Amino acid sequence: MFNRQAYEMGAAPNQIRQIFEYGRQQAKLLGPDKVYDFSLGNPSIPAPDKVNRSIHQLLDTESSIRIHGYTSGVGGDPLREAVAANLFERFGVKARMENVFISCGAAPALQAVLVALRTEKSEIIGIAPYFMEYKAFTEANGSRFVLVPADPEKFQVNIPALAAAVNENTQAVILNSPNNPSGAILTEETIRAVAALLTERASQYGHPIYIIADEPYRELAYDGAKVTFIPTIYRDTIVCYSWSKSLSMPGERIGYVYVPEEAADSHELFLAVAGAARASGHICAPSLIQRAVAECIDCMPDLKAYDVNRKLLYHGLTEIGYECVKPDGAFYLFVKTPGGDNSVFCEKAKARNLLVVPSEPFGVEGYFRLGYCVSKEMIERALPVFREVFEEMR
Amino acid sequence: MFNRQAYEMGAAPNQIRQIFEYGRQQAKLLGPDKVYDFSLGNPSIPAPDKVNRSIHQLLDTESSIRIHGYTSGVGGDPLREAVAANLFERFGVKARMENVFISCGAAPALQAVLVALRTEKSEIIGIAPYFMEYKAFTEANGSRFVLVPADPEKFQVNIPALAAAVNENTQAVILNSPNNPSGAILTEETIRAVAALLTERASQYGHPIYIIADEPYRELAYDGAKVTFIPTIYRDTIVCYSWSKSLSMPGERIGYVYVPEEAADSHELFLAVAGAARASGHICAPSLIQRAVAECIDCMPDLKAYDVNRKLLYHGLTEIGYECVKPDGAFYLFVKTPGGDNSVFCEKAKARNLLVVPSEPFGVEGYFRLGYCVSKEMIERALPVFREVFEEMR
Repeated sequence: MFNRQAYEMGAAPNQIRQIFEYGRQQAKLLGPDKVYDFSLGNPSIPAPDKVNRSIHQLLDTESSIRIHGYTSGVGGDPLREAVAANLFERFGVKARMENVFISCGAAPALQAVLVALRTEKSEIIGIAPYFMEYKAFTEANGSRFVLVPADPEKFQVNIPALAAAVNENTQAVILNSPNNPSGAILTEETIRAVAALLTERASQYGHPIYIIADEPYRELAYDGAKVTFIPTIYRDTIVCYSWSKSLSMPGERIGYVYVPEEAADSHELFLAVAGAARASGHICAPSLIQRAVAECIDCMPDLKAYDVNRKLLYHGLTEIGYECVKPDGAFYLFVKTPGGDNSVFCEKAKARNLLVVPSEPFGVEGYFRLGYCVSKEMIERALPVFREVFEEMR
Repeated sequence: MFNRQAYEMGAAPNQIRQIFEYGRQQAKLLGPDKVYDFSLGNPSIPAPDKVNRSIHQLLDTESSIRIHGYTSGVGGDPLREAVAANLFERFGVKARMENVFISCGAAPALQAVLVALRTEKSEIIGIAPYFMEYKAFTEANGSRFVLVPADPEKFQVNIPALAAAVNENTQAVILNSPNNPSGAILTEETIRAVAALLTERASQYGHPIYIIADEPYRELAYDGAKVTFIPTIYRDTIVCYSWSKSLSMPGERIGYVYVPEEAADSHELFLAVAGAARASGHICAPSLIQRAVAECIDCMPDLKAYDVNRKLLYHGLTEIGYECVKPDGAFYLFVKTPGGDNSVFCEKAKARNLLVVPSEPFGVEGYFRLGYCVSKEMIERALPVFREVFEEMR
């Protein structure tokens, strides 16, 4: 006499978290230097100093009632205004605070957008490899999730495959750039091709088809790689953002939905997002953190440590013989499984306490994901273990 | 081509918030001393000093990565352990941290419990007057909401009416003590009568019927009134708690679900709650605030200011001629509308910038709610205005 679907979602939680919990147990048993945990996407660089400074200062200068009190459900004015101004400055879009809904991170932002777009036969397209919760959220909310494989060379969008998947029930295509798990950044050319296809189909079917731009990794790009802000190319784009990675505060649960003024049904959609959030128990995003983030809106992450790790791990692995696309963004490497059998590989790795995430939950076979948001020292210790497993797989 | 139900929930937001927003606009126009806003349940006493002290100290002594990093979805160990120990100390229940799910406040806690209890024909009973989101959450999540009027004398549960409403599809009865909006505390006698009825029916129907104890006002009781902890009386109770009111931090979004070990299907239900939360985008409750609350688990609110307001407003209004039950808990007065016509009364009050919430959204006609979590000085200014409206209504 309880909800089986909810039970299944709770009983079989996120595979990544399970691997991480295993790593924690092993570290307790054997010592942390015997475990090589690449499972999580938990930032390993501290939040910019200004974050804690802002929190201290807000606590010292603002009244308790203001700083810990409710904000509007859509977010407090200071952060909404800061986001709108920041989007204008950086990308030239005419964002107003009325287009910005402050959420408890990217996950509930995405969830609210998916609920807002649900119709009787709604279909949502994800490009594999994709963040595994896309499917879970879509299906838990009653839409159909449709998988389109990316091109496996550069993990751009496979346009013919996307064209075959879009139909009159398609409500949205989720794009995630920089991508989790591949680290790929979608090129402007790719985004223009997707936009052209969706514009044509939207006109053919007589209703908008949205791009949901899931952007928690927007600020994490290396070697000067450009992350295109999709609303500057495609009008009907809804942005889901999080400061989890850019300000290294994933536990604080803060992000936003941006519904551009010029998007189709912009005002109705914004209200549907707010209503969907309300139905899921959203009251407001954490109030103190909202104010602190407003102060830190211009902070950029110091990516040096990630970049060192990225190069060390990429060069170390390819030298051993592993194959992977050099990632331009995020903090993941997506590596082809040597020998091809992922479950065998992951078990052999796990037996040495080398913890990686197999690619199947991301909708792709024969890869594994490494999060390099770890200590450089752990990567150095892990490389010989990667070599052992590689040689055993041959 | 968007979700109409979500749109409606967003477009017609919480009536209380609308009144509050109106009050804010009027205060800007006319000056704050010309507005008498009793609409919100926003705590007006500051958080205990220890809250800000704990936050400062955590920021200064813990690593950024730990303090702002993800916790487990069910909550971090320190707070789960603190809650379990606190429940044991105060109420003698054998709570373990495994029975405690840390949520982003009471609203998403309740929402997750309602989703976890949804079955094909599930019905959820609310006792009017009730917190308006009960109905919204229940219906948005696909269960039927059934209203049972309370006894209007003391706002206890009308047991014959409840007996008539319980049927084989009943999954849960929501009890909210101290009650929003009436301020009534359910007596132990009332809870025993509800428990006896549900025990009998559960046995008759062959499945558990839960009490959902929605307890954000648990610590707000006056004159030594006792708030019974329902799991000590009824086994199949699920508790939804929030620190919003007890620690005066409603904007920080932190609370919990407690599923007692001995409750029917306890483990499955706990996982269904976790799964329901996951499906709505819950990742974890805000991490810094989780740690701060763990430090402050024994803090009790300093209710003196509320108590002064309660007496001032209660005596002031009854002297004018208003009728209301003297509330033992929470920070609301639920007042009979003089003349009986609520919409006329509320409009007349609003014309004088006296902002109260009509009772209809709480499922009862002919009352209005006053939140006395305001300044004493505003109550003093408002009493003559209450008198004017009263005399005009005669």
